[in-house]
Amino acid sequence: MEKTTYDFGLIGLGVMGRNFILNVADNDFSAFGYDLDQEKVDALIEEGGNPKRVNASTDLKTFVQSLAKPRKIMLLVPAGKIVDAVIENLLPEIDKDDLIIDGGNSFFTDTDRREAYLKEKGIHFFGSGVSGGAKGARKGPSIMPGGNKEAYKEVQPIFEAVSAKFNGEPCVAYLGPKSAGNYVKMVHNGIEYGLMQLTSEIYDLLKKAGGFNNDELHTIFNEWNQGRLQSFLIEITAEIFAQKDDKGTGALVDKILDKAKQKGTGKWTSQNAMDLGIPVPSIDIAVSMREISALKEERVLADSLYGRPEPKTIDKKELVKMAEAALYFAFINTYAQGLHQLKDASKEYGYELDLSVIAKIWRAGCIIRAAMLEDISSAYSSDKELPNLLLAPAFVEKVKGTVASARQVVAYAATSGIPLPGLSNSLTYFDAYTSSRLPLNLIQAQRDHFGSHTYERNDMEGIFHTEWGS
Amino acid sequence: MEKTTYDFGLIGLGVMGRNFILNVADNDFSAFGYDLDQEKVDALIEEGGNPKRVNASTDLKTFVQSLAKPRKIMLLVPAGKIVDAVIENLLPEIDKDDLIIDGGNSFFTDTDRREAYLKEKGIHFFGSGVSGGAKGARKGPSIMPGGNKEAYKEVQPIFEAVSAKFNGEPCVAYLGPKSAGNYVKMVHNGIEYGLMQLTSEIYDLLKKAGGFNNDELHTIFNEWNQGRLQSFLIEITAEIFAQKDDKGTGALVDKILDKAKQKGTGKWTSQNAMDLGIPVPSIDIAVSMREISALKEERVLADSLYGRPEPKTIDKKELVKMAEAALYFAFINTYAQGLHQLKDASKEYGYELDLSVIAKIWRAGCIIRAAMLEDISSAYSSDKELPNLLLAPAFVEKVKGTVASARQVVAYAATSGIPLPGLSNSLTYFDAYTSSRLPLNLIQAQRDHFGSHTYERNDMEGIFHTEWGS
Repeated sequence: MEKTTYDFGLIGLGVMGRNFILNVADNDFSAFGYDLDQEKVDALIEEGGNPKRVNASTDLKTFVQSLAKPRKIMLLVPAGKIVDAVIENLLPEIDKDDLIIDGGNSFFTDTDRREAYLKEKGIHFFGSGVSGGAKGARKGPSIMPGGNKEAYKEVQPIFEAVSAKFNGEPCVAYLGPKSAGNYVKMVHNGIEYGLMQLTSEIYDLLKKAGGFNNDELHTIFNEWNQGRLQSFLIEITAEIFAQKDDKGTGALVDKILDKAKQKGTGKWTSQNAMDLGIPVPSIDIAVSMREISALKEERVLADSLYGRPEPKTIDKKELVKMAEAALYFAFINTYAQGLHQLKDASKEYGYELDLSVIAKIWRAGCIIRAAMLEDISSAYSSDKELPNLLLAPAFVEKVKGTVASARQVVAYAATSGIPLPGLSNSLTYFDAYTSSRLPLNLIQAQRDHFGSHTYERNDMEGIFHTEWGS
Repeated sequence: MEKTTYDFGLIGLGVMGRNFILNVADNDFSAFGYDLDQEKVDALIEEGGNPKRVNASTDLKTFVQSLAKPRKIMLLVPAGKIVDAVIENLLPEIDKDDLIIDGGNSFFTDTDRREAYLKEKGIHFFGSGVSGGAKGARKGPSIMPGGNKEAYKEVQPIFEAVSAKFNGEPCVAYLGPKSAGNYVKMVHNGIEYGLMQLTSEIYDLLKKAGGFNNDELHTIFNEWNQGRLQSFLIEITAEIFAQKDDKGTGALVDKILDKAKQKGTGKWTSQNAMDLGIPVPSIDIAVSMREISALKEERVLADSLYGRPEPKTIDKKELVKMAEAALYFAFINTYAQGLHQLKDASKEYGYELDLSVIAKIWRAGCIIRAAMLEDISSAYSSDKELPNLLLAPAFVEKVKGTVASARQVVAYAATSGIPLPGLSNSLTYFDAYTSSRLPLNLIQAQRDHFGSHTYERNDMEGIFHTEWGS
């Protein structure tokens, strides 16, 4: 085999890894892959076409020795113990100042642990979420790297070349130290859960209340995708309604079982938001709904016991208009919650995140890419300290223009027995966040009554306790 | 000091500890307390009146040596490292077969760790949640012990004597091995968060939509407490509205700052439910609302930017009737979620919980005691395998009779800008749980589209993947 010094190494030649490495080669960097599976190695070499640009091996020593120093070795392997095992195998082979880049959805505290461990050995470790699925990896994903800022420069030209572009700007940026990249990717996925849940609810509403068939839904979502809702998820939703069933008749979407799986990043987002004390109810409920969806047998039984009201008659055109505005309203509130979480996590974990930059690198390549991210990025770039997207002047206008529709949709669905939990949570989040006075004074009174937990007053400083009922 | 052999030892003479030990003495067991604080020790001895029945010391050796074997030593100290420190201090002084009972809200995995550690040394460790606040500890709390079943018999007579009674039945029972007791108490508190949030929302609704003043609210809640909503939380809510401000004029409740604190058990419930994959949205949202309540400054700003609609005119009598039914509906759904979590946790952690017994020991003493727990206990005793309270025939009737009001209330609030997130989540939980078909087929299609995550079909077995848009 001809000896060449390759620019980039990649471990794990599954669909994501193979696509990513071919993307690297397309961008005039030579790349070397490693996988234990000889078939995958052979397939990659064949698909690459020129082993000087794309090569691979099942031998780790060969792999490592083929890379230019400092080595840039990316892992696209399942999160968890496999990442640790790969690192341990690599350690005897690599040198000080080499880079290991974990491209998977590792839990952020695992990344912190690995980064600290490898730092002692002079190795730079990057947790670097990659979003965009298989197509994104091949054609340009959004990449979210965190780790050592200086060392990032080594891999920066490659990442900027392979990443998606929005108006020519690469959808990758150094995000912050330690696990900043994995954390941002985790919250990205949490937002993704929220947006997907909302989209599925609006589909349900249009179908049950408007009686729209899949062709009509295809048209509606296609039209929406030309407007302010323009986004990857709306785009593929339109495509989904057009997909014919290749195993039967009609549209494929109707044949898909309504049990949604999850891989954990949405759950992690919710759980960590609770640790930080940040409310993300539009994400929490998306996690809950996947759980409820799994209870199919119980749902069928419960449905037979209860039945439900007939949806009230509604003008179909009016419904579509309301639904579009309500969905836009709820999307904004979901991004607002995720970004709020990032803002607080940045303080808590010392990430020094720039939310404007994060919104920028989400504008293309990733699953939650959407036209509104341009506006979100602007909002945070004009006010770095913005506590919540809902307080940005441009968004005040957008929300004011759509909240009435959200109210109508939620009210309609509540009386019609159509569950819109994500929409409802987005609305009640908004109504609570914009309430100068909430009724939680009663909760503080209750807590002081039964547990002497004390309370504060709104008319004087101090901590108070009352012997209630005395 | 006269040597006596005391039946029961208690470490930590704060308000809960002092009250618990006096309760033990009232029930004809002698008790010995320990605290580092001489003042607390002296105060207890004085209040106890007879050192043969209630004694205390700041000296750990004296404390341990005063107790009859096997020693029954209860800890009422803050959860966390203090519990470990107390255990380490005790270990050299106590003997094989002694019992240590942690009465605090320890996280259940801490209890498992301590139980395993002490088992090696022949010591029986009990995680044993106590609910009822200071008054409950003094007059009869609900006690939730978990640990070694045989060893429990040693402390059973004391716990049964001091616990609250419902129709003469003690509100304590052996719940299961290991951390079963702490886990049940944790979920008890999660339900408590949910019920408190719901009650505060209905207060908000009655005030904003009905314009009721505090005297009227007092009367309304008092009346509700005579009916199917009869419960400790409704009872104290009525009391709260009657409480005059001792530092100013008017009702105290209006002067209490609307920022609700939390100590973590609600959050733990939500986070662990997510780990188990059990939907508890009425609890999740209660945690979120405490978080939103903390953002007071942002809320005031947001309110000024957005304003809100005027609540629509509504018949006051009709409103009270609807609110009562909606609250009852939401209470049922909240209990249902917590009990669902317990059912699954029991399988996951091997607790062998009897939900009928748990509902029974919650009927008196604890914060979530309520008339409906009698019905809940019956539902689980007639069907040990009941997957969800909503499927129990008696509850189908109760829910059918109230869901229309819940729909009206949620719809009214959505259009009127009154945030009822707990009510909404209880309704959408119900509507989703009773939907034989949910729109999450779309989510599975999306996941397969962008991530090749595959899907199942509703018309044939197998795992499928589609090249979407091809």
